[in-house]
Amino acid sequence: MITKPTLLIDEKKCRTNIRMMAKKARKHSLIFRPHFKTHQLHEVGKWFREEGVSKITVSSLDMATYFAKDGWDDITVAFPVNILEIDTINELAKKITLNILVESVEAVNLLSARLAHAVNLFIKIDVGTHRTGISPEDEASIRSIVKLIENSDTLTWLGFLAHAGHSYRCKGKDEILAVHEKCMDQLADLRSTFSGHPDLIISYGDTPTCSVADSFLPIDEIRPGNFAFYDLMQLKIGSCSEEQIAVAMACPVVAKHPKRDELIIYGGGVHFSKDQMEYFGQIVEFQEGRWGEITEGVFLSKLSQEHGTISAPKEWIEQKKVGDIIKILPIHSCLTMNLMRHFSWEVVV
Amino acid sequence: MITKPTLLIDEKKCRTNIRMMAKKARKHSLIFRPHFKTHQLHEVGKWFREEGVSKITVSSLDMATYFAKDGWDDITVAFPVNILEIDTINELAKKITLNILVESVEAVNLLSARLAHAVNLFIKIDVGTHRTGISPEDEASIRSIVKLIENSDTLTWLGFLAHAGHSYRCKGKDEILAVHEKCMDQLADLRSTFSGHPDLIISYGDTPTCSVADSFLPIDEIRPGNFAFYDLMQLKIGSCSEEQIAVAMACPVVAKHPKRDELIIYGGGVHFSKDQMEYFGQIVEFQEGRWGEITEGVFLSKLSQEHGTISAPKEWIEQKKVGDIIKILPIHSCLTMNLMRHFSWEVVV
Repeated sequence: MITKPTLLIDEKKCRTNIRMMAKKARKHSLIFRPHFKTHQLHEVGKWFREEGVSKITVSSLDMATYFAKDGWDDITVAFPVNILEIDTINELAKKITLNILVESVEAVNLLSARLAHAVNLFIKIDVGTHRTGISPEDEASIRSIVKLIENSDTLTWLGFLAHAGHSYRCKGKDEILAVHEKCMDQLADLRSTFSGHPDLIISYGDTPTCSVADSFLPIDEIRPGNFAFYDLMQLKIGSCSEEQIAVAMACPVVAKHPKRDELIIYGGGVHFSKDQMEYFGQIVEFQEGRWGEITEGVFLSKLSQEHGTISAPKEWIEQKKVGDIIKILPIHSCLTMNLMRHFSWEVVV
Repeated sequence: MITKPTLLIDEKKCRTNIRMMAKKARKHSLIFRPHFKTHQLHEVGKWFREEGVSKITVSSLDMATYFAKDGWDDITVAFPVNILEIDTINELAKKITLNILVESVEAVNLLSARLAHAVNLFIKIDVGTHRTGISPEDEASIRSIVKLIENSDTLTWLGFLAHAGHSYRCKGKDEILAVHEKCMDQLADLRSTFSGHPDLIISYGDTPTCSVADSFLPIDEIRPGNFAFYDLMQLKIGSCSEEQIAVAMACPVVAKHPKRDELIIYGGGVHFSKDQMEYFGQIVEFQEGRWGEITEGVFLSKLSQEHGTISAPKEWIEQKKVGDIIKILPIHSCLTMNLMRHFSWEVVV
């Protein structure tokens, strides 16, 4: 019985999302290395394993350690290597195939001096997000890193890793496809430039492009993560349909303020995160243990630490009672799950 | 040694903040019932105990359970009662003095029907935040709740609880004091209306007014929480000075992009929270294990799940190296602490 804010994971929807992406990867002969930062749960990891996944992506060495304990033995940490965690890198590299990310000569030198076990390296390429990585046109910087790697006994160069994070700024499939095509062009050029390395792997990520695109010619591997759950942000971007959103928050009603068209739930920033669009969530009706369509005109409009304010028409509010449970689709499932895994979550079978 | 994002708590600054507020409460003969939702840590709780605190406030029954285990035996849950957690309420009420919050006849009826042990009730009064609570002018609603409580065997009416949450929208001490005076006027009127109940307690909260005001005539108790740590939001509001901010994030540098005046740290939304002002944090220099002044012109400007982007003048960026640790004051220490207590935190003695 739900008594406090609880993240519900619809197993059926989530498994379908995983199956569809695995199928797309097979269709295009791509390595499917899903990003596990969205769910961060052993339990959901098992659903991926049952769809044939054996290689995964994470965004921290802590997450790599968590999943290595569960038998995952080929893990890419898709985050610029944090050299201060060299002890954890060495511990992991002793046990599993560890693939890490570099983007500077500085990082490779620091790493190479302190590694006790072999690791594989990806070089991070900036395909337009401008967060991290080397421009694909900066051949000189890339070649100086490659040279360092090739001269090291413990480092093996796997290839390039790119993330079209700027697809998160898109609205609709056409914009996503335009970003995707530009990324594919850049990566195709990069492959030609490095044609002397026929075995290099080009790894590519992000949920919007991987969900929408149907051509991945220059690349070898995809690393989407959010697609397992999706959320309202992905719905707005155009990556998914409403029916594909596989997580919802269940929150108790604690107070009603029909005079100002508001209802207060137990569920705040410590549960949802403060990621927002014009609101913090949308309400869905619940039938036979599953959620249905989004309720028009009802929004999670404000969040403080533990309180959430639902803005809704008076008639909607009047139908609700203190002690009812409201179900809410989150804006950003990765951040909501990151909070709720320490608090309360349940699988809806 | 710090190797990954870590929240540093400056014990000296924090203890000074606690001592000053305890002193102010004594000066005005107020019960000091600090809100523990900011730190949520047994360890920091001990510092309060050493300043003579014996009554505390929390914002959830889970937090009450956490602190009850540590010997706190007089706890107010300053959140509209969540009737679905009646079992936890009964467990706690059996062991400790539990004070809970109601704002409707509906909630009192549900509670009264299912309580197995005595609890004390505060009636929530809305002094202008318009999140929850009854208007202090709505005497009829208040009296109907009081009557229900008085007819119950398990419920004892303690008084009124108000929270000037709208002080968070203030800029500067004058605005805070204006909000405070209006609250004091409303609560003084409420006290006169209920002069037939000479023992009732008026409890009042929020860090801005309790930090700045120096007159608390109509009230009996204060419940500030954030003041133990303060943060950039409180600095902007005008509640504290830069020197009083008692927490800072320590984050490793993982990449440098001097061409676009940016530096990338390991430290993202899962560490800081997504609460923001025009930025997500400000940088402080570190000397002899403690942080000093805010560095002008350097900001934590973007956050994704694990990455943080620092925007700074080229010269500043060029002085930093991959593997350095940057110290950053958070926007909202309550939400940052809520995340970091599951990840990594340290006390700077």
